[in-house]
Amino acid sequence: MIHAEHSALVLVDAETEAQTFRPGFARKIIRTADLMTVVIDIEGGPWTEPDPMHAHSHEQISYVASGEVLFLSEGQPPKHLRAGDLFAVASGVPHSIQLLSPTARLVDTFHPIREDFL
Amino acid sequence: MIHAEHSALVLVDAETEAQTFRPGFARKIIRTADLMTVVIDIEGGPWTEPDPMHAHSHEQISYVASGEVLFLSEGQPPKHLRAGDLFAVASGVPHSIQLLSPTARLVDTFHPIREDFL
Repeated sequence: MIHAEHSALVLVDAETEAQTFRPGFARKIIRTADLMTVVIDIEGGPWTEPDPMHAHSHEQISYVASGEVLFLSEGQPPKHLRAGDLFAVASGVPHSIQLLSPTARLVDTFHPIREDFL
Repeated sequence: MIHAEHSALVLVDAETEAQTFRPGFARKIIRTADLMTVVIDIEGGPWTEPDPMHAHSHEQISYVASGEVLFLSEGQPPKHLRAGDLFAVASGVPHSIQLLSPTARLVDTFHPIREDFL
């Protein structure tokens, strides 16, 4: 994980080893004091159903860098997202995704930082 | 601008009109209460020199979605970044970019939100 605590730092994709945190999910993390971005490369799609809904107090904005996902949030119709699309999740709102393509890259940014990812 | 205040919302790139805020710079914005992502499409590169350094109290993490940029920050050697790379800027740290390719897309996320972008 790269931590820009009092400076500016870069994460060079080709020089940074990813951490597999779940089968088919590899991530790279860069953070400041109160902001954390997690680049997640997912393989093994398409999935036949979405992940279970989950919620967290952290606010989240995600950019779909490649692939296609179905974005689900409580009380709303699922949205088909493609590369270049984004979703934003307010604190505590249940949400999930379903991978629709063989692979995808999501760029998830959280505030505050996900202590559970450290 | 899309504001996920108490819910989850999406920004569909193809359905969202960009705002030109400077010649060659078009942006689309999605936010929660304390997090703001600005997708910036830049054209007219490559540039012969970097933008002047600037600083803000907001923490920033940026994802290079396409193109190539030189990332500059005070007291550090410039870094050549390509699609898939990121940079993170702590509060108050002077930084800048120089566009090295004809076009680029940067996904800039800030905490707290940039009131000056509303």
